[in-house]
Amino acid sequence: MSKKVAVIMGSDSDWGIVKAAVETLKEYGVPVEAHVMSAHRTPELACSFAANARENGFGAIIAAAGKAAHLAGVLAAHTTLPVIGIPVKSSTLDGLDALLATVQMPSGIPVATVAIDGAKNAALLAIQILAVSDGELETKLAAMKKEMTEGVVKKDQKLQEQY
Amino acid sequence: MSKKVAVIMGSDSDWGIVKAAVETLKEYGVPVEAHVMSAHRTPELACSFAANARENGFGAIIAAAGKAAHLAGVLAAHTTLPVIGIPVKSSTLDGLDALLATVQMPSGIPVATVAIDGAKNAALLAIQILAVSDGELETKLAAMKKEMTEGVVKKDQKLQEQY
Amino acid sequence: MSKKVAVIMGSDSDWGIVKAAVETLKEYGVPVEAHVMSAHRTPELACSFAANARENGFGAIIAAAGKAAHLAGVLAAHTTLPVIGIPVKSSTLDGLDALLATVQMPSGIPVATVAIDGAKNAALLAIQILAVSDGELETKLAAMKKEMTEGVVKKDQKLQEQY
Amino acid sequence: MSKKVAVIMGSDSDWGIVKAAVETLKEYGVPVEAHVMSAHRTPELACSFAANARENGFGAIIAAAGKAAHLAGVLAAHTTLPVIGIPVKSSTLDGLDALLATVQMPSGIPVATVAIDGAKNAALLAIQILAVSDGELETKLAAMKKEMTEGVVKKDQKLQEQY
Amino acid sequence: MSKKVAVIMGSDSDWGIVKAAVETLKEYGVPVEAHVMSAHRTPELACSFAANARENGFGAIIAAAGKAAHLAGVLAAHTTLPVIGIPVKSSTLDGLDALLATVQMPSGIPVATVAIDGAKNAALLAIQILAVSDGELETKLAAMKKEMTEGVVKKDQKLQEQY
Amino acid sequence: MSKKVAVIMGSDSDWGIVKAAVETLKEYGVPVEAHVMSAHRTPELACSFAANARENGFGAIIAAAGKAAHLAGVLAAHTTLPVIGIPVKSSTLDGLDALLATVQMPSGIPVATVAIDGAKNAALLAIQILAVSDGELETKLAAMKKEMTEGVVKKDQKLQEQY
Amino acid sequence: MSKKVAVIMGSDSDWGIVKAAVETLKEYGVPVEAHVMSAHRTPELACSFAANARENGFGAIIAAAGKAAHLAGVLAAHTTLPVIGIPVKSSTLDGLDALLATVQMPSGIPVATVAIDGAKNAALLAIQILAVSDGELETKLAAMKKEMTEGVVKKDQKLQEQY
Amino acid sequence: MSKKVAVIMGSDSDWGIVKAAVETLKEYGVPVEAHVMSAHRTPELACSFAANARENGFGAIIAAAGKAAHLAGVLAAHTTLPVIGIPVKSSTLDGLDALLATVQMPSGIPVATVAIDGAKNAALLAIQILAVSDGELETKLAAMKKEMTEGVVKKDQKLQEQY
Repeated sequence: MSKKVAVIMGSDSDWGIVKAAVETLKEYGVPVEAHVMSAHRTPELACSFAANARENGFGAIIAAAGKAAHLAGVLAAHTTLPVIGIPVKSSTLDGLDALLATVQMPSGIPVATVAIDGAKNAALLAIQILAVSDGELETKLAAMKKEMTEGVVKKDQKLQEQY
Repeated sequence: MSKKVAVIMGSDSDWGIVKAAVETLKEYGVPVEAHVMSAHRTPELACSFAANARENGFGAIIAAAGKAAHLAGVLAAHTTLPVIGIPVKSSTLDGLDALLATVQMPSGIPVATVAIDGAKNAALLAIQILAVSDGELETKLAAMKKEMTEGVVKKDQKLQEQY
Repeated sequence: MSKKVAVIMGSDSDWGIVKAAVETLKEYGVPVEAHVMSAHRTPELACSFAANARENGFGAIIAAAGKAAHLAGVLAAHTTLPVIGIPVKSSTLDGLDALLATVQMPSGIPVATVAIDGAKNAALLAIQILAVSDGELETKLAAMKKEMTEGVVKKDQKLQEQY
Repeated sequence: MSKKVAVIMGSDSDWGIVKAAVETLKEYGVPVEAHVMSAHRTPELACSFAANARENGFGAIIAAAGKAAHLAGVLAAHTTLPVIGIPVKSSTLDGLDALLATVQMPSGIPVATVAIDGAKNAALLAIQILAVSDGELETKLAAMKKEMTEGVVKKDQKLQEQY
Repeated sequence: MSKKVAVIMGSDSDWGIVKAAVETLKEYGVPVEAHVMSAHRTPELACSFAANARENGFGAIIAAAGKAAHLAGVLAAHTTLPVIGIPVKSSTLDGLDALLATVQMPSGIPVATVAIDGAKNAALLAIQILAVSDGELETKLAAMKKEMTEGVVKKDQKLQEQY
Repeated sequence: MSKKVAVIMGSDSDWGIVKAAVETLKEYGVPVEAHVMSAHRTPELACSFAANARENGFGAIIAAAGKAAHLAGVLAAHTTLPVIGIPVKSSTLDGLDALLATVQMPSGIPVATVAIDGAKNAALLAIQILAVSDGELETKLAAMKKEMTEGVVKKDQKLQEQY
Repeated sequence: MSKKVAVIMGSDSDWGIVKAAVETLKEYGVPVEAHVMSAHRTPELACSFAANARENGFGAIIAAAGKAAHLAGVLAAHTTLPVIGIPVKSSTLDGLDALLATVQMPSGIPVATVAIDGAKNAALLAIQILAVSDGELETKLAAMKKEMTEGVVKKDQKLQEQY
Repeated sequence: MSKKVAVIMGSDSDWGIVKAAVETLKEYGVPVEAHVMSAHRTPELACSFAANARENGFGAIIAAAGKAAHLAGVLAAHTTLPVIGIPVKSSTLDGLDALLATVQMPSGIPVATVAIDGAKNAALLAIQILAVSDGELETKLAAMKKEMTEGVVKKDQKLQEQY
């Protein structure tokens, strides 16, 4: 069985966005743990979770946060696992604050940032990371890619009939 | 003697900006400690510094950081002292990344943010905070305000002679 | 009893945002005065309020304004008390205009800026400022921080049950 | 003789930008007074200057300021004369902070904003304002417009020869 | 009787914003003409309107347009009257496109720009311009300013009763 | 021989950017006329040039302008030829003002916008437009594309040797 | 009969925006083919479509995409036909991401970019391109331009009656 | 020996930024191949490189590009390997164009984006990805993290001596 992926959100109000990540991981049969943990309100919990994640069987951590989104960076500071950041739109600023606070990390502590509210892609990136050394997962990813292609082709055919 | 003010910078490359804060605090006779501590590279040190700052005699913490500037927020998560954030321009983005990552804090953990590269104002704000209960410091602030006014008046007079 | 905190808003239409600051101050037992005063429509009132705030028993001033948000800066020009600025989203520009007009103060006149529409954090910052020399308030802040931590932990537990 | 135009700058460091306004006004024979006055460091002087500007023979006020550029708005709050704002680039933010802080004025207090660092246009706008009821000035403006047209035509001819 | 003010909008869809300017001018007894004229769809009409505006009795032109808002600039190119630009939010970009396209005019052709959707302030600015040489209008402006001040004071009193 | 392409710049200071367009057109053997014409300073010339461009043998117009870049839009208003806009960085705002003022055209009057300072691409786009009905030009474009590919391949080979 | 125009959208969810382009092309009697093809999900289809477009009778390609909008650029890489890009608002960022990803193309591969969601203008630009060598289409464009002018004139007359 | 990492740059002018990634990978003993390949100028090469990368022994692909940075997205479209995007500042826009064009990928095709010009972090992220199943690499990362911490501590000590 593949390693686990952790999906951490800074606030339970992010769940509406984040659940797409959890669902995608489950579709691929990747074991997942979801947690509400805040870089600012439960910093010890967050840091200790990250520090122990590798030995607890995780292969990647996904962190979703809005506004001054420090969560992914704080987790990345405490682990050598790849940390994937989802900037969440949760202020008046269209998610640009969360994007910059997630992606503009200083040298030494990368965060693999995906699009604003891009929870599904965060999950796919985690799966790609696990699939580097997991042929079965890779097969699923390749199949999904083909399916996605066929889906677009079908939509194109439908459009041809429509107008 | 007044409480101490801590001036923390995320990287020693911020010193060029940050030293104006240290100098201003010294001008006012406020005891100051300056440290290089990183939210990402020395998180334990930073957190433990903040957690013990009050009992170690500090009355305010100034934190300067660039890019995805998490330092002020991380410190604020570990103390009930007021934390003042200086967003530092240290990327290609003119400091907007640091500004948003410093000011857009979630509910519950405020950071008192000053202008991009605004180290002197960070120090003045710390002094204003101490001066709430320190009449001597207040007197100095009021004197400085008057001096500042006179400085502008003199510059205006000089301009009148000049052109 | 602790010093008072003034909550000034540039327009009564800001009340929807600002009342969270007033409520938070009351929760902590901090005496509060709220006023509608405009940097542009009642400049004399605003300036004289600020100039007399310290001797009238205030320990901090919170100012909320939108668009070209000059209120906090104008108040700060007339007092040595710490002035906390809340940039309010009240134009088409998502609050970025108010944020920049509040935070980018010139050297000599700091404004402690919080997040766009961040009224609750403005109140907490004011309380932190008063708590520098008020042990009772500090105890409340520390208790609130603990409560906040427990709240997140409970939300995490609830999430575990949910999915 | 036409009414006077006041050119107010928030800091003497703005003079490099602002002098183009003064020079343009002089070219047109418009009497001009230039002052360093700050909305934050000399608020009383600035307010009283604006309040008395009309009876002191001024027909328009030009105000140049950078960062959280409150100067034009504060002057406008104290006069019924047209106030022209020049946002000055004086921070890391390319002048966008000054532009928004100058132009996004609340209802009731307009500021006639020109381009970032647009001192010459500020002067021309002041002259246009005076020229509404001053035929002589209007004649000069019309002549300048024609000259400007001819200047472009000459540059076009020169380009034809060049390449 | 005072000079006329023209209110030109680039599209009749701007009327919802622009009518506040027309109404304000009427309140002050300033004769007003409103027109739909486009810099791009009826350029000849727009140019000829501007070129003849002064001799047709206008003292100022207000131009409202959205997106790549060229209208105010094009009108300003054809007159020596002051032209006031209202950037209108009419695209997905929150009015920033219209603001920059209106305010960032090249040297020689100023546009007096007001806030995004700031139609009332555009009218007040036009009235201020006419009032430079019209004592009666100035009296009305001063009265309005006083009324505005009293309005804020009343709102403050109401707030005191309310909470 | 192919139709001509006009290259219009709003100011002769744009020539440093714009000459790359003229040179590229000449390399392809496309006859080119370059002019300095301003939407604001020589509006009649610009409008009449555009109105007569088609019958004067032009197949496309390239317009380069900075700041509130109205030139391309104004030309497009007077012709049915494709108008290509080059937003030029000539203010403090990194060219964003020129980009938005060029690209955000209202419905009915398109401007084919290329990258900020993208003069060479503007020329290539004009050539592509002429090449729609000109096989010889198309052959040259296809050859250039192949050459470009080979250039990258050579740079890759050089890199392999280098490190 | 004129050459065909291809209208390619990256996702069928763009159809609501894109259909205005198809309808406009039909109004002008220009044969049009619409397709759903993705730069990322069906890259081979998209590339081969572009590579064969010219010999398949197309004269221009319109590509609409949102977010990191690569579609127009990828198509342009495979053809010497003019490619017109429509940046579509489909993220939280108001279309700015799509605009920059479409317009800021590297030297050698231009994309003729229109306004965010500017589907009708994309079609008009394609028609202008075909009309360079098609007198009949040009006549239609000129007629439309006249009609557009008359439409604005009528709206102006209506406004005069209305208020 | 660990899997290889590919470092692809859109233009050889990106080498100044990109070489830090190559050097970091070599420091960790990770085999690396660097290539100049363009999404727009050599699309076939780029696509075929990505399509074969996994079977050619690569475990991750790093792609660096500026402006409308499509390279990472185009590579990601052709592989199930994790693709890491480095937005490069190579236009007037401070890298914001490249950042948005890299990170805002549509659902189904993630790109793991790092900071603007963040080449070293891109390499570290690639190493973290390989280290998920490579204990030796993980040991090196943990050692580097410790060294980094010690480096900051030493800089702090040096600062204490300095002032």
